Amino acid sequence: MSTSQTHSAKAYQILDVRSLCDYIDALPSVRTLLGGRSQDWDVREVGDGNLNLVFIAEGPEGSICVKQALPYVRAAGPSWPMTPERATFENHYYRAVGPHVGALLPRIHHYDPEIYCTVMERLAPHIILRHGLIAGHRYPLLAEHLAEFAARATFFTSDFAVPFESKLAGVALFAGNEALIRISVDLIFKDPYLASPRNRHTAPQLDTIAAELRHDPALKAAAARFGRKFLSDTQALLHGDLHSGSVMVTPADSRVIDPEFAFYGPIGFDLGAFFGNLLLSWYSQPGHAGDGDDRTAHQAWLLDQLRLFWSTFRSRFLALWDANAQGDAFPAALFTDAPERAALTRAKHAFMDSLFADMLGFAACKMIRRILGFAHVQDFEAIVDVTLRARCEAQALAMARLLLTHPERFTSVDAVIDAVQPG
Amino acid sequence: MSTSQTHSAKAYQILDVRSLCDYIDALPSVRTLLGGRSQDWDVREVGDGNLNLVFIAEGPEGSICVKQALPYVRAAGPSWPMTPERATFENHYYRAVGPHVGALLPRIHHYDPEIYCTVMERLAPHIILRHGLIAGHRYPLLAEHLAEFAARATFFTSDFAVPFESKLAGVALFAGNEALIRISVDLIFKDPYLASPRNRHTAPQLDTIAAELRHDPALKAAAARFGRKFLSDTQALLHGDLHSGSVMVTPADSRVIDPEFAFYGPIGFDLGAFFGNLLLSWYSQPGHAGDGDDRTAHQAWLLDQLRLFWSTFRSRFLALWDANAQGDAFPAALFTDAPERAALTRAKHAFMDSLFADMLGFAACKMIRRILGFAHVQDFEAIVDVTLRARCEAQALAMARLLLTHPERFTSVDAVIDAVQPG
Repeated sequence: MSTSQTHSAKAYQILDVRSLCDYIDALPSVRTLLGGRSQDWDVREVGDGNLNLVFIAEGPEGSICVKQALPYVRAAGPSWPMTPERATFENHYYRAVGPHVGALLPRIHHYDPEIYCTVMERLAPHIILRHGLIAGHRYPLLAEHLAEFAARATFFTSDFAVPFESKLAGVALFAGNEALIRISVDLIFKDPYLASPRNRHTAPQLDTIAAELRHDPALKAAAARFGRKFLSDTQALLHGDLHSGSVMVTPADSRVIDPEFAFYGPIGFDLGAFFGNLLLSWYSQPGHAGDGDDRTAHQAWLLDQLRLFWSTFRSRFLALWDANAQGDAFPAALFTDAPERAALTRAKHAFMDSLFADMLGFAACKMIRRILGFAHVQDFEAIVDVTLRARCEAQALAMARLLLTHPERFTSVDAVIDAVQPG
Repeated sequence: MSTSQTHSAKAYQILDVRSLCDYIDALPSVRTLLGGRSQDWDVREVGDGNLNLVFIAEGPEGSICVKQALPYVRAAGPSWPMTPERATFENHYYRAVGPHVGALLPRIHHYDPEIYCTVMERLAPHIILRHGLIAGHRYPLLAEHLAEFAARATFFTSDFAVPFESKLAGVALFAGNEALIRISVDLIFKDPYLASPRNRHTAPQLDTIAAELRHDPALKAAAARFGRKFLSDTQALLHGDLHSGSVMVTPADSRVIDPEFAFYGPIGFDLGAFFGNLLLSWYSQPGHAGDGDDRTAHQAWLLDQLRLFWSTFRSRFLALWDANAQGDAFPAALFTDAPERAALTRAKHAFMDSLFADMLGFAACKMIRRILGFAHVQDFEAIVDVTLRARCEAQALAMARLLLTHPERFTSVDAVIDAVQPG
């Protein structure tokens, strides 16, 4: 007992540039990556997210990124405590999914569960995808990379791929990530539909629309249906926060980061996070027009990415399923002759249709929470002209509302695209 | 470490009449229930189930039932090992559900996790419901009791009633019951649809039908869909084996026993177990006709119980939901004015419709496994005339097949009843 107390009392400290240097100096393998000696290293804090400290350390031989979970929400300060255990779940996710997705995740050099500190590959010259989309950059491989990531990460942790005992052990492990799941439950599926002190929106321009959405019975019931599904359908291990701020890109490379919201849930939740954030980007583009670029070409590119993301995800997931049906769901041994294999194919297609419907519903929930809820996105926040910003946001809200209240109209990506840009 | 080894080496022993007396003698509260001294007690082993030892102990003041989990499947012997940990999960279930269902469960006097031994209320003059149904007895309160039990046990462990953290902790706990879940996964959703050495059926009479079902692509795909749902939808804490052998009855009382298959899953699985076993009873009745009773009145009573079970479950679950919406699914705070409450009601009804569809699908899976799989039921086994038994079983199989392959025909209990007994 006293050992453990001493240990844990000694262990947690909030890192600063100096203590991080000492920390790295004591990790031979990491020291080797940087090269030289600690006085040769350039270390700086660069975090701009909601929850963590992020350092970059550069040495003569190489550089690393160090992420430390704080015991509170960085965006709110110590008054909003938040267990740093989330870093441990983030690392569980890296370990569980890493072997299946290769270089679509950063390399993890070291994790220290006592100070919730991850030493990882420094991604350079990568930038956060959201910033790239705001700047009007295009990434030709993005949609395929993300589709490949989502397909592999979810398929290989699902009942289609692994014995249920393995999945249940994962479900039990990630059940411990309840503090982060609580954030999603409240900030995605509840607060935006209520008058909550944590909410904000572009006011007064969106006052009427916000009030209208908060009194749309069908919309609220639909959001609640997806909230229930979020809590109850343990289809696969999810990233849990797969928006464009959790992806780092170059024109040739894409990496998924920050899986601290990881848990077992409905696959459509991860798909919807990415899909919905592409839609948010589309609706924000008029706010970033200028300098001879009206952003219509960028919008057209974004719509192509929506199509490509879903179609690639669908075909990759189905191909993985055909080749790796080692799980307990739809046991391969049941479907051997041609008519049985045809029935299995129909069942797989029906499952993919259910993922598509889930993707759209969750995408809509994510869009609404980013405009009416607590945590907003730079895509809109960076639009200085408030009237223009509100117009963009209002159109995004209208689309999200349509997706939630008229799902029967959206049985294909093309139907979504036609609704976004009629014509 | 050595303490724990000594402890555990000392702890597990398979009880017999003598060692059970010594064991009880060392439990003051239980000794008091029996009264007198150990030489005054009548203790006998009465177990006839597949998995456990069951003793009845009677003393001058009262009697108790003692159940001990064996480290193997009793029906198969030590060659089929089976962790006795299931007894611990059974007791977790009693503790989780007990407070919500009152006297619909037996009272638990003592549980010893070291020898996996439960000392519980002796139910007398109760008999196993399955035996009562075979004998042609009727139980006027049965359907309502079981509907009340299923409604309360599932509602109060669902995301409708409790914060998700509480449900997730339960999901994580019962994930440990994987040995019993494995039995369900294999014996309900896989083996019956394959040629497996664990299967048996009334042969040769059912050979053709068994082969036909095992080559019905739509049937196998439907069973696999329910198998996937069984593994992935953590709606509530389930009993996991709620057939008519897990219910003890008198004309006035009903008690649910043997929840060792407990886990978090789709509510329709528990409903379907009970519903499907009532259907099996219906189909078996011609095999028990005689002595001036052709069992048609008993069959009519059974059909009434199907109707009453579902309608009571539905209305009780909805009433509990209206009165106790403390959970994170469909947060009550979202639905306050009249149109919102109406939308919530529609969503609740849609959820009940999904439970109804699940009930029928799981009922059908349970019916098939009891006729073509490993573990059969006395309802049919007790029919000595093999030709007659096969005819009853074939009709039950035909109904199960219809339920799985044509779910669109069964949107009400009346539709089910019409299909069971046209006209």
